[in-house]
Amino acid sequence: MTSVDKTTVDVEVAVHHNESATQYQHDDIAVEIPVALVYNTISHAVMMATPADLADFALGFSLTEDIVDNAEQVSHIHVQSNSNGISVRLMIADEKFDALRERRRSLVGRTGCGLCGVESLKQAIRPIKPVQSVQVADDVIQTALNNIKQYQQLQQLTGATHAAAWCDLEGNIVLTREDVGRHNALDKLIGAHVKAGLSPHDGFVLVTSRASYEMVQKTASAGFGCLVAVSAPTSLAIEQAQHVGLKLVGFARSGRHVIYHDPFTQYDHEKAHRAM
Amino acid sequence: MTSVDKTTVDVEVAVHHNESATQYQHDDIAVEIPVALVYNTISHAVMMATPADLADFALGFSLTEDIVDNAEQVSHIHVQSNSNGISVRLMIADEKFDALRERRRSLVGRTGCGLCGVESLKQAIRPIKPVQSVQVADDVIQTALNNIKQYQQLQQLTGATHAAAWCDLEGNIVLTREDVGRHNALDKLIGAHVKAGLSPHDGFVLVTSRASYEMVQKTASAGFGCLVAVSAPTSLAIEQAQHVGLKLVGFARSGRHVIYHDPFTQYDHEKAHRAM
Repeated sequence: MTSVDKTTVDVEVAVHHNESATQYQHDDIAVEIPVALVYNTISHAVMMATPADLADFALGFSLTEDIVDNAEQVSHIHVQSNSNGISVRLMIADEKFDALRERRRSLVGRTGCGLCGVESLKQAIRPIKPVQSVQVADDVIQTALNNIKQYQQLQQLTGATHAAAWCDLEGNIVLTREDVGRHNALDKLIGAHVKAGLSPHDGFVLVTSRASYEMVQKTASAGFGCLVAVSAPTSLAIEQAQHVGLKLVGFARSGRHVIYHDPFTQYDHEKAHRAM
Repeated sequence: MTSVDKTTVDVEVAVHHNESATQYQHDDIAVEIPVALVYNTISHAVMMATPADLADFALGFSLTEDIVDNAEQVSHIHVQSNSNGISVRLMIADEKFDALRERRRSLVGRTGCGLCGVESLKQAIRPIKPVQSVQVADDVIQTALNNIKQYQQLQQLTGATHAAAWCDLEGNIVLTREDVGRHNALDKLIGAHVKAGLSPHDGFVLVTSRASYEMVQKTASAGFGCLVAVSAPTSLAIEQAQHVGLKLVGFARSGRHVIYHDPFTQYDHEKAHRAM
């Protein structure tokens, strides 16, 4: 049914309506396929993803998961499909490959030590550096929200994919990536952003999904200063945004959005407090 | 900010409206926290989850991830919070613990073999047994959809969580579990269903999220015959449903839903074809 060259497939479905007879029709369905990321000789992770922009995905994932420090440490990315899915092979710098191998080895060394629970929990929240804050005006966020829909081509066809977009400080959509997984869409965007040689400081990220911890983590690790999400944030996402100085906006819909953390506003609050 | 005993926290937010002044208010935010699943002495996985019904979660995950074959192989589940998150410790039967340790060891053995990409992709799609089909009428699906909202307590407060519900064949909601992650909500439901001693054959699963491959995989591995999702399915979810004989319904909203696979209807199609 699925082809690795296609992002949608045609499926015959039965549509039930309460008020009329069942209707048989053809629907466009978003393709989901296993994608293996293979570093030099190690198959590191397999993720279910949309088979589009997979070189961007591999680069973005490598950066946000701290496998490489910068794009220059990735010398080659090759996307290859086979009967079981798609392999993306990356050649990374020797020292980063050694570090990855060590990371995987120490992952196993811990099994059976009796303290794994605590150690693993500690690892769950990776430390990230504070970001350079960016001021994004409310009307700019609203402009971007009004612009994003026309760039969600796969979503318009299937209703099954999330988008992550890079927006400039006038609310124009500069880059968009889509995927059945929200983390994948963001990793694809981050990879595309780096490849395009754009600055992380003169724009913001808009995602059509929720803002969980990992979404804030990935945004901040790419050095971006603001994340706008169409749906809800979680407690850990807000905590992490406060921790790194990231502006976090959620429930962003046409005409209304909610600001969960804004480093600039907080500063003003403190000043106002001191002035009293 | 987060407490392991609470599923929501209170956060001060700024609400922007296009047509009026910014409003400062307090919002209920869904707590997201790292949860480590520790089997006997091995910390196997850490997931971000909602700190509720974690014993159900641990049991359901153990079943759907094939770590144990049945609930009797889990002798003890203990939920313990610490400063980094929550550890759920499970005591499982010796032979299942040995199998888990072997699985983790072989995971490492493969690194560096050069074929890992292919091997890992093969492993991505786990074989599952065909399910016993269940006939769920369209009006029963609609009844369940109308019933589910009142059981989504956390979603009503936060707008940030997914629900998975077990519904009987009249559309009544029998069990509901909520989580910031849709896979977690389903694992919690499966654990709760097993603990309640219910039959997998006289009802169906309703999830308020999308139906990806993993959602079908988990539903079928619990032996359930029908999955109804409020949002879109993916290609791999439909393929897997066809493969195991699971009825798969998507875009299920009040008044309308879409049937992506129905083993009974297909059978009728074939009969009709033969009769021609």
